[in-house]
Amino acid sequence: MKRNLLLTPGPTHIPPQLCEALGRPIIHHRTPQFQDNIKKVVEGLKEVFQTKNDIYILTSSGTGGMEAAVVNLLSPGDKAIAVDGGKFGERWVELCQMYKANTVVYKVEWGKAPTAAGIKSLLEAQPDTKAVFITLAETSTGVTPDVKAIGEVVAQYKAVLVVDAVSGLAVEEIKTDEWHCDVVVSGSHKGLMLAPGLAFVSASPKAIEVIKNGKTPCYYFDLRECKKAMEKVDTPFTPAIGIMNALVDSLEMIKKDGLSNMFARYKHLARAVRAGCKAIGLELFPDPSCATNVLTAVKVPANIDGEKLTKIMRDTYGITFAGGQDHLKGKVIRIAHMGALDEYDVLTGLACLEKVLHQMGHQFELGTALAAAQKSLNAK
Amino acid sequence: MKRNLLLTPGPTHIPPQLCEALGRPIIHHRTPQFQDNIKKVVEGLKEVFQTKNDIYILTSSGTGGMEAAVVNLLSPGDKAIAVDGGKFGERWVELCQMYKANTVVYKVEWGKAPTAAGIKSLLEAQPDTKAVFITLAETSTGVTPDVKAIGEVVAQYKAVLVVDAVSGLAVEEIKTDEWHCDVVVSGSHKGLMLAPGLAFVSASPKAIEVIKNGKTPCYYFDLRECKKAMEKVDTPFTPAIGIMNALVDSLEMIKKDGLSNMFARYKHLARAVRAGCKAIGLELFPDPSCATNVLTAVKVPANIDGEKLTKIMRDTYGITFAGGQDHLKGKVIRIAHMGALDEYDVLTGLACLEKVLHQMGHQFELGTALAAAQKSLNAK
Repeated sequence: MKRNLLLTPGPTHIPPQLCEALGRPIIHHRTPQFQDNIKKVVEGLKEVFQTKNDIYILTSSGTGGMEAAVVNLLSPGDKAIAVDGGKFGERWVELCQMYKANTVVYKVEWGKAPTAAGIKSLLEAQPDTKAVFITLAETSTGVTPDVKAIGEVVAQYKAVLVVDAVSGLAVEEIKTDEWHCDVVVSGSHKGLMLAPGLAFVSASPKAIEVIKNGKTPCYYFDLRECKKAMEKVDTPFTPAIGIMNALVDSLEMIKKDGLSNMFARYKHLARAVRAGCKAIGLELFPDPSCATNVLTAVKVPANIDGEKLTKIMRDTYGITFAGGQDHLKGKVIRIAHMGALDEYDVLTGLACLEKVLHQMGHQFELGTALAAAQKSLNAK
Repeated sequence: MKRNLLLTPGPTHIPPQLCEALGRPIIHHRTPQFQDNIKKVVEGLKEVFQTKNDIYILTSSGTGGMEAAVVNLLSPGDKAIAVDGGKFGERWVELCQMYKANTVVYKVEWGKAPTAAGIKSLLEAQPDTKAVFITLAETSTGVTPDVKAIGEVVAQYKAVLVVDAVSGLAVEEIKTDEWHCDVVVSGSHKGLMLAPGLAFVSASPKAIEVIKNGKTPCYYFDLRECKKAMEKVDTPFTPAIGIMNALVDSLEMIKKDGLSNMFARYKHLARAVRAGCKAIGLELFPDPSCATNVLTAVKVPANIDGEKLTKIMRDTYGITFAGGQDHLKGKVIRIAHMGALDEYDVLTGLACLEKVLHQMGHQFELGTALAAAQKSLNAK
């Protein structure tokens, strides 16, 4: 009878009605019936992306969507700027370098955000840059940059702005068109509350022009072929049909809820989790001025092994937080508040955190985190 | 109350207990709980592949698995032989050419199979060939080649043998190790009776040596990274968790059924479908000596539009057959008998085929196909 609650930055908790949708009988993908679902999904995703741009659907994890962005936009030798302030920024750098781009790495200290001014000065020095790669929610550190300001800068140059919104979409606001985000990548298993297996890539007219002239070989992730197929309401290869069908339902739920209500809810949950953590002496890891609402990364007390903490929470009590990555292993815990979670889920997470911290000898009065979170949740 | 029966070569019918498995709550993939499932899946797949080789799991459709084989085995300029006798052979050619391999195309007439002798003479002429690409079940034409004989030939050369078994695995026998199939590619949504979203690639020691020295850039489909991760019972990127979990159940069902019983059943169903079709004047499309048990491709009568036929069957009666591809559009129908289908499903398919052919004016006595199939199904 152990609970199975994921407070992790992907996969996220799947609500029961979407589990049911994932378990429905399959339909064939080369049929008018499935084409109806493609149309609904594209339309719904455009609302969530806040865009009129093309959206391409790929069957892969989020990284496949990132690879699609890189191989379609960059030809060998092209200049690229990639922001590296955590594990997912690092992935942009690895992808750009793998495909032989001339890559300028904008290194950012973990927990800090890249700035529009920083990007402007790099673009000034390298005006022939083809693409700038950033991350909407760097989940390894809990950081979100000022995408709007960065978008305004990049729009003044030849370069396209590429945003990894795999973890951020539908949780942290991104106004694709208004903020000049030329390419935005996301996935099915984060804010969209489904199983992993689908990636989405939006492309602005400016990006499409660049993609047209791309010279890096690609086949499975060829967005030119994907565009052709999707204009005929089709996909180039067999899509993850089950997830696509369930996505129709997920996007309807999101529409009913309302995007701005969702953003407000995640902010509300994030604030409560932070209040709870602070009350028992856990310090926020990122600079508070750039902390994302996707998840809360907090430092564990010096005498506590964070890896052991999350292991006990998960294996003994069924509540899953993420641990720290790389040099933060054991030193940080990451509590996601995204997707189908409500106030009671984050209180459950904090209750379990209190329980295990208490067992591990951290000194505090039981109930302190819960009370602080509850006050935050019910504040005017 | 319309039936939804897929007699298509992928996706295939998903049995209710696997639909249920696909709809179960998600678990996190970086946990011992999920690692148990990775272990079970790899072990189960090795039995189905009939191999002791490594098996790598990718989150993509079958084509992603094919791309992985090409980009990991071939460096630009490497010599490759690709058999093209239908749509899926054509895909091997396109992939090899896209990634700049020096590609010898072994063109085979649609409906015929490549021969071991044909491959031997090509290898004699090009002894430095790095890889030979074939298709276990060419579903566009309904053909299976003599993989065993081809394997014996290729094993005598430097080249590795790569088999697209996306549609064939668990339906048409393939003895990966015994037949010297160095790389075998498959997917989740064919013989394994699940939703699309996972691809599998097996690699022999001979193939692993070639992969080690591959120089084509790759990231998402990098099998070297995949091997490293899977040796730690992990995947490099977030896998299609839901399909993986359901695959544990699918592989258990297959194990209970027994591979040799399954192969015999598909042969039994194929024979009955062919007897039924023949009885109402529909001629088998491929050369009978190389017809696969995965599906039956038959020519439609000259006065009947095959596209209209399959459209009415699907949209009016809910029974889906596949139509012909490319120059066979409208001229051929393809009836799959793979995955979770039994005698009554193929009789249902034939009953609907009779109904619509009759409506469209084809002359025959109603019940003729059913009777012939029933006799075949119940023959000693």
